[in-house]
Formats: sequence, structure tokens, C-alpha cells
Amino acid sequence: MINRLLKEIQKKNAPIVVGLDPTMRFIPEEVKQAAFSVYGETLQGAGEAIWQFNKGIVDAVYDLVPAVKPQIAMYEQFGIEGLIAYKKTIDYCKSKGLVVIGDIKRGDIGSTSSAYAVGHLGKVMVGKETYAPFDEDFATVNPYLGTDGVKPFIDVCKEEKKGIFVLVKTSNPSSGEFQDRPIADADSRPLYEIVGKQVDEWGKDCMGESYSYVGAVVGATYPEMGRVLRQLMPKTMILVPGYGAQGGKGADLVHFFNEDGLGAIVNSSRGIIAAYQSDKYKETYSPANYADAARAAVIDMKEDLGAALGNN
Amino acid sequence: MINRLLKEIQKKNAPIVVGLDPTMRFIPEEVKQAAFSVYGETLQGAGEAIWQFNKGIVDAVYDLVPAVKPQIAMYEQFGIEGLIAYKKTIDYCKSKGLVVIGDIKRGDIGSTSSAYAVGHLGKVMVGKETYAPFDEDFATVNPYLGTDGVKPFIDVCKEEKKGIFVLVKTSNPSSGEFQDRPIADADSRPLYEIVGKQVDEWGKDCMGESYSYVGAVVGATYPEMGRVLRQLMPKTMILVPGYGAQGGKGADLVHFFNEDGLGAIVNSSRGIIAAYQSDKYKETYSPANYADAARAAVIDMKEDLGAALGNN
Repeated sequence: MINRLLKEIQKKNAPIVVGLDPTMRFIPEEVKQAAFSVYGETLQGAGEAIWQFNKGIVDAVYDLVPAVKPQIAMYEQFGIEGLIAYKKTIDYCKSKGLVVIGDIKRGDIGSTSSAYAVGHLGKVMVGKETYAPFDEDFATVNPYLGTDGVKPFIDVCKEEKKGIFVLVKTSNPSSGEFQDRPIADADSRPLYEIVGKQVDEWGKDCMGESYSYVGAVVGATYPEMGRVLRQLMPKTMILVPGYGAQGGKGADLVHFFNEDGLGAIVNSSRGIIAAYQSDKYKETYSPANYADAARAAVIDMKEDLGAALGNN
Repeated sequence: MINRLLKEIQKKNAPIVVGLDPTMRFIPEEVKQAAFSVYGETLQGAGEAIWQFNKGIVDAVYDLVPAVKPQIAMYEQFGIEGLIAYKKTIDYCKSKGLVVIGDIKRGDIGSTSSAYAVGHLGKVMVGKETYAPFDEDFATVNPYLGTDGVKPFIDVCKEEKKGIFVLVKTSNPSSGEFQDRPIADADSRPLYEIVGKQVDEWGKDCMGESYSYVGAVVGATYPEMGRVLRQLMPKTMILVPGYGAQGGKGADLVHFFNEDGLGAIVNSSRGIIAAYQSDKYKETYSPANYADAARAAVIDMKEDLGAALGNN
């Protein structure tokens, strides 16, 4: 799957992931009302609104980008009905040829991580039958529990030819609270570098053609740390959240990439899916045209990144 | 809810949580076959088997223990159908007067943590209606993203009178890989102590009558660390996994408790729900009597803890 992701990035000339993180306030009133008119203002109505909204976005951008990243929390907040919309979204995106990165940030002790791994990336057995319950292509993983929390995901990836992105340095303001602490027995290097080195280590045994399928998450909001981590993990694909709404810009992202122009994929969520609400696009696009606004935002992001990477 | 949890612990004289972590191999063949005969060997069949198995356990132990801890991964591995069983289990346990700790180990950046928090502990709005999708009483939270990943959970807890347990030192063998690293700018104290201090800090503003509703997870498998953390976080309720099957014993757990005999609640999953498969109980209990075996295991655990705590 890492090879396919890289091929799709090159084919579409866009190291871009569209974050499918719909919240009720991003969804145009008429999409919501259409769903509520059938299901009422219920969790099922919310699930339907999210699904229809996502479908509109996906139809408008699938030819431009290699991948999408649904954030499961935005679905899980609506309970079972939200998760049904999550699953529908995964299946639809895959049917449109998109690579799906499930932003699930799971991580637990061994046997429990195994359960998450089979549920999201692998297959589970029921009697003599096997099922692939969520079936994302990649998943994000939290490393706080150490190797035996991450290894079960790697084992499933190996079997299923899928991949993970391990949280190394997250994009949020307080990510430094624990991730930046200097580690005394490692020349006071920050914890995120220790985690990064471990990701590189885990990845050595998990190589695709040119990159490992054990990737890393490093926030666009910390470009200097991105530069260091890029060097520490030369064969690691970096998933970069925090572009756009969270403050990251194309020019900040150059050092997340390798000299081959690859090695990173940049996520934008709100900046694309809610583009129609932003100052930049709201004059041109009405809420009804939210999907066209998303397409315009992807094209602009592609230009911004392309200019920064000098391959436009 | 922290006050209620403490009252229930005292009333039942049992600082015990039953971990509802059903896997297919813990469920007796006849429970599975009954479910499969209606739904086939499908995800729905698996969900039904899990739910019926849980119901048997809960009916057998609810009068003995204050709380249960369903591990969501064990349900999520069966996709939507598994999560329906998770929700049914929560509702049933609450109807039997049990406090429900959702072992979800979620944690993300601010707005995303908010979504998890409302989905699991709070209420979500759909139009003008509000819903409580999963509605656990407590949830476990991963701290790797720092304060702005945890604070949204605390905010919801404050509003809903619920609580969280933050992962500090987990019970698994490789938990030390990152959690034990010495922090250079904190006298080389290990990271888990830094996280523990922060949990104590978060909790100061979140006090119930005697304990904070921002609790901590510290594994039974690391009793010496439990002793230190107990002192670092005097008002923090500690959820202690790792008893029984993972190797922790009653005598190891004394120092997780305060002198008031409170301050900790010990989880056992496999040791209770799969007791009928263990050497200790399998002679006495057949698979059909798995629930009786679970009850016997709870009574024995209560004695073991009681003897260790000297209040038997």
C-alpha cells in the first residue's frame, strides 16, 4: 500500500491528503436539512448528513488527490450512526481509487492493539468466516505504550500489505509538554526524536520499494522539528497535519520532503472541506457549492506546495 | 461520579473492576453457537455472542463489584456490530447499578479530543436535539498530545459529572520504552512521573469530595512505580490494570492505595471472565457455568485484595 500511495502521489503530482473531518457546522444547511427531513434531527440524521457531505467532497476532489484521511472522532461523536457514516465513507473513497488513511490514533497493550489492528487494517475471524470490519488502508497509531503496543499493527500491515503512521510530533500547541522533554540518557535529545528513531527502527524491517510502511506523523506547525526528523527517519513517509487552518504554509513544509520530492504527504481538513466558509472562497462559492470550493482549495494547495517544492 | 464510584467501592467493600474484554476464545462454545444459529458466523453473530456472554458475567457479579471496564478494542474489532454490543453492554451495566469505565484510550488534538469527549462522556447536538451516544461514566485517555488533548475531556467531565483515567504508567512489558525515559530538565525523573505530576495538577481543579475525577492508570505489574506515583498524586484515583493474568498480585498492590484504604481500583479481565478456562477453576466449573466461575474468581480476588489491605 505504501508503494501504491507513492505512485498515486506521483501520478496526481500532489502530496496531499484531504482530511474528511466533518462537523455539523461545516455542513451546509441544505445538506443537513435534506438529511433531517428523512431521518429527523437524530444521530441517524447526523450520520446521513455527514455521509452526503463527504460524498460531495469526494466526488469533487478524487481525481486531484491520492488520499483522504477521515478522522474517526468526528464520526464516533455521533455513536454507532456516526461510525456507519465512517465506514460508508471509507468504502466510497476506496471505490473512487483513493487511499484511505484512518486517523484513529489507537494504541494499547499487545493483545488489545491486535484487536484494533485486525478491526481497522486486517481481518477478524468469526467461527470459520473472516471479515474486514473497517478496512482502512493506513491507520494512525499512538506510541505511548511502546513497541508491544505498535508491533501488533505492524504484524497486520505485513500480512495485509497496509501501513501505519505513528504519532511522533503532533501539530497541536501543547504537543511539546511531553513530546519535547529532553531525555537525559540520550544527550538531552527531545522525546519526539527518540520516538522518531524508534519509528525508523521499526520501519527497517518493513520496506516497500523506496519507503517503509511504518510512517510518522509530524505537525506542519513545527517545521524545524520536521527538518530534524526528516534526517533521522530517511525512509519514513511523513504524514503532515496542520497545514492551512492550523497555521502551516507550503514554504514551511519543504524540509519534510526528501530530495526525491517524496517522503511526505500533507493533510488539510478544514481548509478544504470548509473552504466555502473561509474569507478566501466565500465570495465565489455559496454553501450549495461547497464541493466546488473544496476543489478550488485543493488546486490552490497543490500550487502552494508545488511552488514551495519547486516542481510546479 | 467519582463520589459515586468511591461510595460503591466502600459499600461493596471491593476496590475491583471487572474488565469486560471478551474475545471469541473466551466465549463458551454453546454461547457462540446459540448466537451463530440465529445470525450465522457473521459480525452480527459475533456481536450477539459477546453481548450474551457479557450479560451472563454481569448478572453473576454485579452485586459484588462497583464497576466494570469494557475494553472498546475488543468490540471495535468486529466493526459496527461489535460496537453495538459495546453500547448494549454499557447500558445494561448501568441498569444494574454498575459504574462503567470505557477503556477507550483516546486522545487527540483539541477539537478532535472534544469530539471523543462528547461522544463517550457527554452529549452531542444534532440540530436542536441532544444525544449521549456512548455515555460511559469514565473513560481512559492517552496523554501523549499534552494538555490540549486532555482538557476537552476534563471540560466535559466537569459539565456531566463524569471522570477520566489518564495513562501514566501502563502495565505492558514495553511500557518503559518511552514512559520510563529520564527527563533531563526534571532531575532525570522518568517521564511517567512528569505525566503523573501533570495529572495531579489537572486534578486540583476537579475535586470530588475526597478524590479528583481526573484519575490515572498505573499498571499492577510495576508496584514500585505505583508506590512513588501514589505519593506524587495523593488525591488521584488510580485505575490499576494487570492484576491476575498479567502477573500482578494482591500483595503488590498495597502501595497503590492511600492510608484511608481508598485511592485505587484494581482491574481484572481474563482472570475473571475466562476463569472457567484457568487451572484454578476448570475442575469445578464447566464452560456452561462460566458465569459462576467468574463470580468465584471475583470472591477470591476480593479476599486476596482484602488480605493484602488488611481489612478482611
